[in-house]
Parts: sequence; C-alpha cells; structure tokens
Amino acid sequence: MLIREITVTPVAFRDPPLLNAAGVHQPWALRTVVEVVTDEGLTGLGETYGDLDHLDEVRRAATALVGLDVYRHNDLYAAVARSVGDAVVTDRHGLIGAATREKTVDRVFSPFEVACLDIKGKAAGRPVVDLLGGRVRDAVPYSAYLFYKWAGHPGEAEDAFGAALDPEGLVEQARLFVDRYGFRSIKLKGGVLPPMEEADGIRALRDAFPGHPLRLDPNAVWSVETSIEVGRALDGVLEYLEDPTEGIDGMARVAAEAPMPLATNMCVVTPGHLAPAIERRAIGVLLIDHHYWGGLLRSSHIATLCATFGIELSMHSNSHLGISLAAMTHLAAATPAITHACDTHTPWQAGQDVVAPGALRFVDGAVPVPDGPGLGVELDRDALAVMNEQYEKCGIRARDDATYMRAFEPSFSTRRPRW
Amino acid sequence: MLIREITVTPVAFRDPPLLNAAGVHQPWALRTVVEVVTDEGLTGLGETYGDLDHLDEVRRAATALVGLDVYRHNDLYAAVARSVGDAVVTDRHGLIGAATREKTVDRVFSPFEVACLDIKGKAAGRPVVDLLGGRVRDAVPYSAYLFYKWAGHPGEAEDAFGAALDPEGLVEQARLFVDRYGFRSIKLKGGVLPPMEEADGIRALRDAFPGHPLRLDPNAVWSVETSIEVGRALDGVLEYLEDPTEGIDGMARVAAEAPMPLATNMCVVTPGHLAPAIERRAIGVLLIDHHYWGGLLRSSHIATLCATFGIELSMHSNSHLGISLAAMTHLAAATPAITHACDTHTPWQAGQDVVAPGALRFVDGAVPVPDGPGLGVELDRDALAVMNEQYEKCGIRARDDATYMRAFEPSFSTRRPRW
Repeated sequence: MLIREITVTPVAFRDPPLLNAAGVHQPWALRTVVEVVTDEGLTGLGETYGDLDHLDEVRRAATALVGLDVYRHNDLYAAVARSVGDAVVTDRHGLIGAATREKTVDRVFSPFEVACLDIKGKAAGRPVVDLLGGRVRDAVPYSAYLFYKWAGHPGEAEDAFGAALDPEGLVEQARLFVDRYGFRSIKLKGGVLPPMEEADGIRALRDAFPGHPLRLDPNAVWSVETSIEVGRALDGVLEYLEDPTEGIDGMARVAAEAPMPLATNMCVVTPGHLAPAIERRAIGVLLIDHHYWGGLLRSSHIATLCATFGIELSMHSNSHLGISLAAMTHLAAATPAITHACDTHTPWQAGQDVVAPGALRFVDGAVPVPDGPGLGVELDRDALAVMNEQYEKCGIRARDDATYMRAFEPSFSTRRPRW
Repeated sequence: MLIREITVTPVAFRDPPLLNAAGVHQPWALRTVVEVVTDEGLTGLGETYGDLDHLDEVRRAATALVGLDVYRHNDLYAAVARSVGDAVVTDRHGLIGAATREKTVDRVFSPFEVACLDIKGKAAGRPVVDLLGGRVRDAVPYSAYLFYKWAGHPGEAEDAFGAALDPEGLVEQARLFVDRYGFRSIKLKGGVLPPMEEADGIRALRDAFPGHPLRLDPNAVWSVETSIEVGRALDGVLEYLEDPTEGIDGMARVAAEAPMPLATNMCVVTPGHLAPAIERRAIGVLLIDHHYWGGLLRSSHIATLCATFGIELSMHSNSHLGISLAAMTHLAAATPAITHACDTHTPWQAGQDVVAPGALRFVDGAVPVPDGPGLGVELDRDALAVMNEQYEKCGIRARDDATYMRAFEPSFSTRRPRW
C-alpha cells in the first residue's frame, strides 16, 4: 500500500500565558498536521511540533516518503533519516532536553509513523491500540497539568482560567480541572518561583486533594543541592519529582539522596541516553513521548526496555491537539508499563481542535480509547482551515517563551541552575 | 476476530546422532504444531518444543485462549500467564539456560503469538515481516551449523551425513553444507572433545573456509580459566565465542580477558537476566530465540533493548521444522539489529517437514522472506499425520540427550565445568 500524497499543514491556536522555567507561553501555540494518503485512498493523520525549522524538515521528509509502502516502517524511517541528513534541530525553548541527530530523525519520523499506523488500522478495521499489542486498559488516566500563570496575556483581557501565582491560585486551578475532567493525579509545572514557595504550593495541593498523587517539574533549573533540599522537604508528598536538575550526572546525585523517585523528559530523551542513565541510576520514571521517541512503535520498544530495568513509565506532553491525544491514548492503552497517569495540555486548548468533536472525551480523568479503526479521529477541515489561517497571521514561527517573557521582564534569564 | 478453535499436534521426526555437552541427539526429535482458527475462518500456525511437560502446558493454554481476540496480544499473554500459574517447566537437556516462571510463560505463549501474527498477516494480506516493521533485508542469512557426530545411531545404518569426530570430519561436513546451501558463516557445536581439540577443529575450518566467519559453542562446559585460554588460542579466528562457561558472573570474567565477543543463549534467556548481564558486561552478542523470548513481537522489543546497549544480535536454534524457520526468517528480516547470520538446524531435517514444499528455500546461505500473506507457509496435512504417528510410536516424550548417551557411554556426565 503505497503513499500517494502527503499534506503538511502548520496550525496555530490560542494558548494562555503559562509560566515555566523558559519564560511564558506566547499567545499562539504552533503544531503541524500531517495527512498521508495511499494509492488505495486511505488517509492517515499525524501531529507534530510547529516550529519552522522542524516544519521545514517535516516538509522535506514528506516529499521523500511519497511512493513508499506504509507497511515498511523501517524503510520509512531510513528515508526520513536520509532526508534529515546531518541536520540537528534544536528545541529552542530547552524544555525537552538536548538535541541530537538521532532525536531529530525520531522527531521528524514520528507524525508519519502515526499516520501510517492510522492507515494500517483502517485497512485492518482495527484501532491503533490493536497494532501495538491490544489494550491493557480501556481508558487512559491523565493528570491535571497545573501551571503558574498570569490572569491573561499582557494587554489582553483575562482568560477563563484566571491567575495562579500562589498556593491559593494553584488550588483554585486544580479544582477547576478536577471538577471539569475528573483528574485523579496532579502535576505542577514549577521552575517559576523560588523552590520553597513551589513546595508550599505542593503542600497546599496535598491538603486540598489528599488522595491525588502529586508531581512537581521545575525543568532542571535547580542546583543539585537545592534539588536534594526540596526533595527532602517534600518527603512523602510527591509521587515523583520531575527533572529537578540538569543532566544525567546531576540527576544521579539527586537520586542518591532524594526520598522519592526522579522522573525525566529532559536528561533521557533519545536511546543513547538510556545506558548511562541506567548505569548511574539517575531516574526512576521515564516520561515517554512518541513525538520525539520516533513514533508509537519505537516508544513501545523503549517502554519494554525501561520495564526490563525497573524504570517506571509516565508520558510527557507539550501543547498539542486531538490527533496527538488520540495517538498518546492508543500507545498508553497498549503499554502495560505505563502505570502513572499521563500528562496532557488538552484542558488549556479550551476546545480548540483540528479533529471533529465526539471521538475524544474525559471520563473520571481518563480518555477512553477511541472506538473507530485507526486513531479513531477525523479531521475537521473547517477547523483546520481556520487554524492554518491563524498560523499564517499570528506571526509566530517558533516557540520562544524566553523572548516573550523578556518583553515584560527584560532581565529574565534562562540560566541554569537558577536556584 | 476471535479464536474459535486451537489444535495442538505433537510430532516426531528423524534426527541424526549429533553430539553436544548434554549428550547426543536421540533418533527422534519432538516438536509441537499449533493451529489457531478464528471465527472468520482464518488459520494461523505456530511451532514449539515437543517435550511432554511443555506440551501439557501448551494444551492447557490452548483451552484458555479460545474466545479471545487475536489482536489482543497483551490479553492473550495474560491468559497464558494465568494458565501457566506458578509452573516452571525446566529444560531437561540444559542447553537453553535456567528456567524461570516468566520464561515458562514466554515459551508457552510463543507458538500462539506466532499463529496470531500469521492470522493478522493473512487478514491484512501482508507477510508477517510487515507487522514487525517491514523488511530490512529480502533474505535472512543463516550459518552452517556443524556438529561432532557419529556415523549413525548405534545399531542403525550410517546416515547421509557421515561421521565427524576430528578436524577432517568437520571440514567434510562443512563442505557438504556450504556446497548444498551456500552458507557463508559456520558454527561448530562444541563441548564434546577436549577444548584444544575443538580449537584444532576451528583452525581446520578457518584454513578450509578462510572467508567464513566462525563460531564455537561448547554450551558452558568449560571453566573460566579454560574459556580464557581457548579464547586467547583462537584470537583472530572466531567471530564470537558462544557460552564458553556458565552464568553471568563466569561469562563476565571470561569477557574481560577473551579477545573476541562472547555470545549467549544460556546465561541471558529471559528479561530478568538482561540488567545484570549488561551491568557486568558479560556478553557482546545475544542469540535471540522467539521460542523462549515470548514470540516475535517481544523478541523485536528485546532486540531494540540490546541495540540500545551496544549488544549485537544473532539467533539461536533448536531442532525445528518449517513453521519455525518461516517465523525466524520474518523476525530477522524485520530486525535491523540482527546483523549476524542466524543459526538453524534445518539441514539436519533432510527434507522432513510439516509445511508444504516450495515456500522456504536457501539461496546463497540465506532464506528469502516468504512472499505470501502471514508466515507464507501452509501445512502439509499428510506430512503432519505421518509425523504425528511417528510421535505416537517413537516412545520418546522428552528430549534427553544424556540418558541416550549413557546407553553407550555409561560414565557420561553432564557436570559443569567438564574442562
């Protein structure tokens, strides 16, 4: 079954001013939608980052893939690798770890692999979860993903989520998400306030939601010493502490002293990082993310690797749309080792999406695996056209939280460690 | 697509008197053929060991799997795990390492998983290789698998392969296999003669086949000291030295001193062995075998794990028939990391098979991936009936090379180390 045509469409959607160690989310988030069409007329969907240098690589790879067989996963990967060549596309925002050539290929390959799985599922009349081993859970639990945030973008009206700059604001935000979606785990994006203030926020969440596992993720802006200190201060309160400090070496030093497991989506982000991280006992939980681990099949292989070494699994999220939520849900539903609730930015979309409503929903904090064949979601072409127009008009071509932050706080620095 | 019926058929076929560290092959080799039939009338084939205690577990699991969905790989595995319970089926011949409960489940699950892949391939109209990632090679290279052997079973006429009890006999056997099948790698099953005599055999093979990579496998009957000594004596001659001594600890001590990579299908035979073997740097090559690594999909995950840690891959073989050769070929064709020629006992079958002729053949020492959907092989029901009758009549119910050997050499011992 040969690829006849691939369409690559960048889109932009409104994003609230979410604070993190790299700065603050710009008013528009970018994504790229990939549509693969076969010679038999089947269509598959994929979704990836929207930053222009990545988009350029995706467009180049799309050209290279036309004519290849959707079932030849290894051939498709090799074609993407040839297309990427020696390019290394960095993540300017610095929130998903170091860039390597292999990671660049894995990132460019991912949306095409997801689209081909969508097609293979449709051809077999089966959901993608069945091509990855079949469901071990009927619905995938996600976490409430809290952010410190401003009430609205500067110069604009307040958004529907309100401000969250102290423990009370966090609890209010959590209440909103838990009430609306039924989340049973809570993650706080940290790295914004002095660490002990963020620990106060976590304790406030613990008091307000005593039965909810809690996570804190300062995106590696703490020193080793600070990380150990905060870890000890939150003994018994955190399910895991995510990327407190930078690098495998630093994480290993924290892991040896902190009372809770350390999780990462920053120091282990490509296969070459696994051996040294395991040897150093740097992490207890890997946040897998098919967008940069080379798609769903390769992510499931990595999950087996982690399980074999006693590393637990959760799932990482950047701002994303419904194609990715569907792909994440199929992967997590088929992967026994993903035992922690997965992260998602979905609530921050506030209903904006490129997929037609109805296929994806939250029930008690979990997304039921879509029923239909393939990913089980269909493009809403009107919504896609609107979001593509937003992309053309918004003026943003790459995520850059730091520059946006400096428009309001000129002295803002992304230096690590900050504390 | 639900499993309507499973047929489990034990078979026996003639086997020459092949010598190894555990004794000598009995006149009949046992296998079990599994046929899975779905509610839509599709049939899938699997093949596994024929030893009675394993056969009993396979039969029990077959009952437990009826009614389940062939696409629910994880559910099928869980059902087999429940069926096996706490049973640990040991390998009495002791040639594929220690038995564990997980390995027992993986062994019982494997033929059903292969049969379900056969079905899923037929349903999609695609070869199994395409369900594992698509081919990275059109034909899978195998090695000439040499054995020291008697001219025939005691009390019977000489077989077509003749005796091989010295370097000249080995070279003659290799010549036969290389001329007939075109093999470009050669493996010698050792552990039979004093180690330096086996080293002489290897050197004779090197002189006769200077371009062929060579391997020697004494099945862990050498001490650490002997292993190092033989390893040094064969510096520059061997592609790899396979299981010279017993256990991860012993292998690690040899690996630190021997000049060539060590390979194993004995000290690392289940996921739990991987972490300690990697930590100790015990092995350079893993001989994967889907029959005890839980089927083709799980084997491909393990291959990714090994590649991630810089461990190379080859493939292990016990005496087997064409269903397994097809499965092995699909797996190796889809697995980039299997870069060494795979082992197979196929030539020793001398044409005996349960699959209809034509689908499997050797070209220049490699088996082209079968073209048809699924495994690409079909049962020869007449041959199956004959082999099942042979099973019923042969009187052998479990492989026991040692007892058979002791009928002729009463003092034969399987003590390790022997040298």
